[in-house]
Parts: sequence; C-alpha cells; structure tokens
Amino acid sequence: MGVLVVGSVALDSVKTPFGAVKDALGGSATFFSVAASYFTDVSVVAVVGSDFPQKNIDFFDSLGIDTSGLTVEEGETFRWAGVYGYDLNERDTIETRLNVFEGFKPVIPKSKVDSEFVFLANIIPALQSSVLDQVAKPELVACDTMDYYIDGYREDLLKTMKRVDVMVLNDAECRQLTDESNLIKAARGVLDLGPTTAIVKKGEHGAMMFTRDCFFSAPAYPCESVFDPTGAGDSFAGGFMGHLALTGDTSESNIRRAVIYGTVMASFCVEKFSVDGMTGLGRSDIERRFRMLKQVSHFEP
Amino acid sequence: MGVLVVGSVALDSVKTPFGAVKDALGGSATFFSVAASYFTDVSVVAVVGSDFPQKNIDFFDSLGIDTSGLTVEEGETFRWAGVYGYDLNERDTIETRLNVFEGFKPVIPKSKVDSEFVFLANIIPALQSSVLDQVAKPELVACDTMDYYIDGYREDLLKTMKRVDVMVLNDAECRQLTDESNLIKAARGVLDLGPTTAIVKKGEHGAMMFTRDCFFSAPAYPCESVFDPTGAGDSFAGGFMGHLALTGDTSESNIRRAVIYGTVMASFCVEKFSVDGMTGLGRSDIERRFRMLKQVSHFEP
Repeated sequence: MGVLVVGSVALDSVKTPFGAVKDALGGSATFFSVAASYFTDVSVVAVVGSDFPQKNIDFFDSLGIDTSGLTVEEGETFRWAGVYGYDLNERDTIETRLNVFEGFKPVIPKSKVDSEFVFLANIIPALQSSVLDQVAKPELVACDTMDYYIDGYREDLLKTMKRVDVMVLNDAECRQLTDESNLIKAARGVLDLGPTTAIVKKGEHGAMMFTRDCFFSAPAYPCESVFDPTGAGDSFAGGFMGHLALTGDTSESNIRRAVIYGTVMASFCVEKFSVDGMTGLGRSDIERRFRMLKQVSHFEP
Repeated sequence: MGVLVVGSVALDSVKTPFGAVKDALGGSATFFSVAASYFTDVSVVAVVGSDFPQKNIDFFDSLGIDTSGLTVEEGETFRWAGVYGYDLNERDTIETRLNVFEGFKPVIPKSKVDSEFVFLANIIPALQSSVLDQVAKPELVACDTMDYYIDGYREDLLKTMKRVDVMVLNDAECRQLTDESNLIKAARGVLDLGPTTAIVKKGEHGAMMFTRDCFFSAPAYPCESVFDPTGAGDSFAGGFMGHLALTGDTSESNIRRAVIYGTVMASFCVEKFSVDGMTGLGRSDIERRFRMLKQVSHFEP
C-alpha cells in the first residue's frame, strides 16, 4: 500500500546560526514524501512554477516518488524565507511568496483516487476537504494544519477534522485549537473534534499520541547537532504514515511504532539543511535509530 | 539506608487560576522530605522561625521525618509568595522574605554525619559545600540549584559541583549553567563540571538522565489537573533519592527507575496546593503510577 500526500512543494531560503541556503528544495509535501519514500510508495500532489529546477524532479524520481500529480504552472514556485535564532526553537518568517501555490486546486490523478493512506499536509482546510471529496475510501487519513488556519479558517478546519482519522499538530497548535493550556486535556479535546487519534509534536521534547483509550509518550531522538528544524514536522508525518502504509496495520501498537519511525525521520531531517539529512539513508540507518529510541526510553519494572 | 536533606522549610503563599493558599507549608527541604518519606527514613536539616506552626512539625512527625536537625530560631520563618498564570509554566515571585533563613548555617546532627544518601537542596552553594565538609563519606550526593546561584555564585557552585555525584536541574538552568542551547549538549556539559550523572527536569515534558555512557528519557505523568507546580522539582528529587536510598542500588538501571519514581512523586505534588497532593498516599498509589508510566512509554520493537 502506498501513501498519497497533498501539500506544498517550495523553494526555501533558510538562515540558521550554522549556515544558510537559498532556494533549497522545501515545502510540506516534499519533506513528507522524502521521509515516507524510505517505507513505501509515495504519490505527491502539489503545484510548482515553471522555474522549478529539473534537478528537484530528478531527485523525487531517484527516490521513486510518483510526481504524476505534481502540476507545473506558468509562473514562480512558492518561496519561503526564514531565519532561526541561536536556540532554534523560534523562527522569523522573512518572506512568504505563494506565487503559483496561491491558486492551487488539488486534483488527484485518477490512478490515485483509491489511495488507502492519505496525508493532508498543511494547506487551506477547504482544499484539504476537496481532496477527501476526490478519494474513494481511504483506510486512514491524517491531517496537519497551522496557527494561521486555526485562527482564520476555524470553521473550515473543523469540517475537515470531522473527516480525518489522525490529527497531527504541534503543542502550540494543539493548545490554540482547543483553547486549553493543559496539553493532556488539549489533546483529548482534539479527539472531541472528530479524529480518533491525536498526535502532538513537541520538537526537542518528543511526541505524544492519544486515542480515547490510550496515551503514548515518545522520547525525542537525542540530536546533538541540529542545523535546521525546517520540515521536521512533515518528516515526522512522513515516517509515521510511511510505516503505517508499509505494514497496512493501524492497530494501537503499530501506531506507537509509527510515532517512533516519525521521530527517527525528523531526527535525520534536522541534522542538515533542506532534505539533505534524509538523502542517501539506508534502512539500517533508520532501524539503528529506532533501536536507540527503544533503549533511550527503557526502564525495568 | 536513609536520606539526609539540607534546604529550606518555608511558608508559601501561592495563587494560581485554580485557587490560593496563604502561609502553607513549603520550601525545598519540605517537598523533598515528604516525597522521600514514602520510600525511606528522612532527616531534614533546615531552620524555621518561632512562628512556625506546631501542626507542621506534627505533620513531619506523622510521616516519620526526623526533625532533630530542624532548628527553631527567634524570628519569622522564610516566606515566599508567588502567582502562576493560566498556563502554569510561568510564575511571578511576589515576595521573598528570607527572615531566619538569611543566617542559615547548616549543622548536621552528629547522628547523621554518616548519612549515605545526601540531597543538597537549593541553597547558597557555599552552604552546600559546608554540608559536604560535615558528612563522612556518603555513597551518593545529589544537588539542586537555581538561576540566581548560577548567575551570581557561579564559582562557588562549580566548587560544590565537583563534589557531587548527581546534579538535578531544570532545562533552563541546564542551558544557563553551560551556556549551550542544545539540551543534549548542555546536559553533557554538566558532566564535564564534575557530576557523574545529570538529571534534567522538563516539567510537563518529563525528565532526562545522562551519564557518560547512557541517556534515559522519561515521560511525564499525564496530569490533567495541575493545580500548583510549586515544589514539583523537589518532590521529584525526593522520589528519586528516596528510591535509591531504599534500595541502596546506584546501578544505571536502578537510577532509571529512580527517575520514574521522581516523576511519580512530582505528579502527586502538582495536583494540589502545598504538600496536600502527597499526603495520605499508599505505596499502591505510587506503584500504580509507576506502572502507568511504563505503559505510557512502551512500544514493541
């Protein structure tokens, strides 16, 4: 089983205390796809401009990512520019030029409408719903969003959320969405809005997973050299969904494992700029970090 | 084996969005002692004023806490007043009146100089060192501190740290002490200053334990009703040291368990004001939360 992702493919200019890149491959669907490609077949639905470098398409191809849903439109590709300070937990957006992404209307290729695993990356909630109108009957739909949509598109977002199985948020978004400062209550509040599973990403503090019946706390991978946090959340989602699609198993115990695979992919992502940290990995690199996380969180009764 | 703690016994006035208390039993040595008393014999060395209510002494007695090292001096007991905002992660200190605590010179009772487990709660670093001058040869010494001492008493603190086995800090203190924003690097930096073990408390995000050879990430207990975070760190230390003293086992695997017991005691602490959340517990209450934390962090390979 493969996974379908709808989101942004962008060119990012990022500056951190450790260096800078200009017009590097970025966007939510990009990070997700690259991470998920280590687990399963991935199809990406997004839009880029006529300036989008062929080398990036070649890169997707090299990972076996299906780009038949990647539309090329006359104009410029979505550009994002941001600067991180020394502690890397805060970032300033310097520039957001939506360009061709502004008119993005996702069209799911006919061959992908029966996708069983679907990830709605961070785009306008109404477009996320339009994707669900086009797919047949996915086994599992996961959805991300951001502060901007929680604040300005709440009604549409709530409509989308009623149709998804797994909501993936960071801790600030989770609190904002539910207007609840206690993170445990906030996450349970997300479940009241429709999804059966809520995943709360906490960056250097790991991640949590909630269902009505269970709570799972996953450690962060102990990264000593974090170069660029951009894309960590989408890489997490890619590892998470990739593992679920690979195994076709949505049991609680497998969802716990999927959270750990998400954590592993995010840890690779942040170690280099753009998708460089997730380039050229072997399955053994991923499994080594999975085992490390098992060891890191282990204690005897 | 019992545990000796040197720190403050205070009367706290605390206001949170959920209520307020005035002149409630508080102080680092108090929270530590109450938490540790569920595991082992505890002796407290501290000073209070002549206004200190007898009911608090009776309370210590009821838990079997040895108060022969609790000096009563003419004058007023240390008073602290603070207010927490809605998210409980930030607090404003309204008032700190050291009173008799200002002249505190810890004197270890003769019967306690051979204590094998010693906790140096958050007091002036030079006083922490003076405690170590008085005890014979403890098996394990743990030490806490705070931003004020890291900033203003750094040299003294570094001298104390060279003589302790376990440094217990929160994440902000860990970063401040080592001037390193990456928390993993910061914790390893603490080990370079003397201690063989560094424990980083992260509140709602759990705790981490580092030695030269190992890294352990402990989940937070999923508290849905946090009423008052005051004393959580000292309660953590009490559960941690209490378990080590009870078992007399300072192996890595037992230190991991001790971190979990610390987490459990902190979770009881924050559920009510003052030490009320840790009053009247049974061993089974503690074990139930220990098992819950095992379940919360479990995943299959």
